[in-house]
Amino acid sequence: MPASPIRKLVPYSEAAKKKGRIVYHLNIGQPDIATPQGALDAVKNIQTKVIEYSHSAGNESYRKKLAAYYQKLGLPVKPEEVMITTGGSEALLFSIMSCLDEGDEIIVPEPFYANYNSFALTSGAKIVPITASIKNGFALPPINEFEKKITSKTKAILICNPSNPTGYLYTQQELELLRDMVIKHDLYFFADEVYREFVYDGRVHYSTLLLEGIDEHLVMVDSISKRYSMCGARVGAVVTRNKELYNTMLKFAQARLSPPSFGQIAGEAALETPQSYFDEVITEYKKRRDITVELLSKIPGVVCPTPGGAFYTVVQLPVQDADEFCQWMLSDFEYENQTVMMAPASGFYATKGLGKNEVRIAYVLNEESLRKAMECLKVGLLAYAKVKQASLV
Amino acid sequence: MPASPIRKLVPYSEAAKKKGRIVYHLNIGQPDIATPQGALDAVKNIQTKVIEYSHSAGNESYRKKLAAYYQKLGLPVKPEEVMITTGGSEALLFSIMSCLDEGDEIIVPEPFYANYNSFALTSGAKIVPITASIKNGFALPPINEFEKKITSKTKAILICNPSNPTGYLYTQQELELLRDMVIKHDLYFFADEVYREFVYDGRVHYSTLLLEGIDEHLVMVDSISKRYSMCGARVGAVVTRNKELYNTMLKFAQARLSPPSFGQIAGEAALETPQSYFDEVITEYKKRRDITVELLSKIPGVVCPTPGGAFYTVVQLPVQDADEFCQWMLSDFEYENQTVMMAPASGFYATKGLGKNEVRIAYVLNEESLRKAMECLKVGLLAYAKVKQASLV
Repeated sequence: MPASPIRKLVPYSEAAKKKGRIVYHLNIGQPDIATPQGALDAVKNIQTKVIEYSHSAGNESYRKKLAAYYQKLGLPVKPEEVMITTGGSEALLFSIMSCLDEGDEIIVPEPFYANYNSFALTSGAKIVPITASIKNGFALPPINEFEKKITSKTKAILICNPSNPTGYLYTQQELELLRDMVIKHDLYFFADEVYREFVYDGRVHYSTLLLEGIDEHLVMVDSISKRYSMCGARVGAVVTRNKELYNTMLKFAQARLSPPSFGQIAGEAALETPQSYFDEVITEYKKRRDITVELLSKIPGVVCPTPGGAFYTVVQLPVQDADEFCQWMLSDFEYENQTVMMAPASGFYATKGLGKNEVRIAYVLNEESLRKAMECLKVGLLAYAKVKQASLV
Repeated sequence: MPASPIRKLVPYSEAAKKKGRIVYHLNIGQPDIATPQGALDAVKNIQTKVIEYSHSAGNESYRKKLAAYYQKLGLPVKPEEVMITTGGSEALLFSIMSCLDEGDEIIVPEPFYANYNSFALTSGAKIVPITASIKNGFALPPINEFEKKITSKTKAILICNPSNPTGYLYTQQELELLRDMVIKHDLYFFADEVYREFVYDGRVHYSTLLLEGIDEHLVMVDSISKRYSMCGARVGAVVTRNKELYNTMLKFAQARLSPPSFGQIAGEAALETPQSYFDEVITEYKKRRDITVELLSKIPGVVCPTPGGAFYTVVQLPVQDADEFCQWMLSDFEYENQTVMMAPASGFYATKGLGKNEVRIAYVLNEESLRKAMECLKVGLLAYAKVKQASLV
């Protein structure tokens, strides 16, 4: 497994910090938002004397309440269709392991979350990318582009909605087009919906669980990591109405015994989180998104679509090689003893050479830090341009 | 992945419970021992406001303290050789995924922990069994038996010491023979030592970490599940001095982001558990083992070696088909409204047809329950013999 371009930067950010520099981390989706107190309290108040294995599919009480939670959102889910997993990562891994054999192919719009590569690699499956373009804000590529890629080896499609890394929010119509294709070619439909709550401007997230006619095809992947700012709890879920597939996934779940008990307690309690928590969080993220997009758009040569959801945006920079630029920002640059760490977008593309002048920015910092980070980036781009020009002379 | 013979029994035990029967669970290694209060308190007292991702290799403070813990036991381990995993299961999975490719072979003495099959299957590797016999208490088979099985595809050997399911404790001499073989044939040596503390009769566990000359070969797998009766925390560890291998495993660790945060907090605090806790636990398990072996040995036709460690024993019963017998105990038998659930040993053998008249018994219940369970088993064996005899008439 090759090291990702993001992880290659870690030693440089560590070195920058050792020099006493402030590094603004726009490179990872680790929110600074507080975990709901109710979730923390549930763990703090555990009465049990033995931290036992749970059911391999997760605690029954949690599965029931999680199904009820989906139902309250208008998503028809039964408890027996829910499996609790060790994070959304494991949910995706089980899905791919259960549906794809060595050499099978899975079509994924790129740029996509880089760890999809690792999950595919683990199962011996191959990711076949369909390129979405920054020019139309990373919208779904035309369906005939998908169909061109379908072979006898194609077993599934995978989308992330809203998207990490682009923040693109799929429309109902786009999802219905994918649904029709999935039925026509008898494919599995993996939908990573872990950022479901994070949608802005009055838009509504349309879940794949609402699509009719694909009960046997659909696997919806979920997680408590971002929803409740509880990334470290390592609790996710997979929802499928395909009983045979559920049973296959359960075998993988049994092999790893059970998902984490403490995290499940926190996750179950988190379901009681009041709407006011989300209202505040969404307001905060919308503000951060608006600041990010506004300040980025003012920088000459920067192209920044307005993401409809999640808390990421893929941005085009006036550089030739964003990998090099991101490293330079950490190793050679400082502005008032500060710098910025971003994720070079090349790592989110499977097609070689794409995303070379793009970065992913996670707007997970507070307004003050974000403003400072954007100022840093602006100054950095100018300084970098001068360095590059000088090297040409 | 086929369903294990143990899991096939679950519906029968559920049905028995629905009829109001007491089912003594000797089938799984879920101890009833209390988790150390210090570990629980650490989680109950968390002050953090955001449950963040940890480092993919686990919290640095935990890795340092865990290395110090090994050093205190006389095992030379450096913090940078330790990786925290999501249970011992993931530690083993990472080991196999990192060292073996599709089609590679791993030699394992059988009977072995059934989930090794799942981990091998996940990585596309093949388990090649070496049969240990109940006749000599499941001691290590002669090294020339191993060597007969070595092919160009053989990449590793895997042992569990003390063993789940047999309770066999390897001697220093046996481990040195394995060490020499591993060096001679340039193999990886995976040692599952999660039951290290559970040794009886003044015996001492000899860790593979003490073996010299195999720093590049050795992967030691550990877990807090049994040591601190914290199976649900899902925290384990892998120790290797092979830097390249460590880095490969780290990539798998990065793909799943981080091990569980709450469990790590509990695991780190558990390192402070006083020796008195273990003294009590070991005394309790030794008592349980002695009762189990004593009562089993009194049942006509039962063969029960005295296990040197862990809390399992593989027992030969006077039946032709232990799978059928175990199911019958749940579905057709009751003694004073009680019955016993055991794990048919066939699931712990890779060689077809072996272990048909053996079961694994986990002595994880308190003395009173154990005595009742053994009485139940005795009566059950007699009643089953009569049923079988009647069916022959």
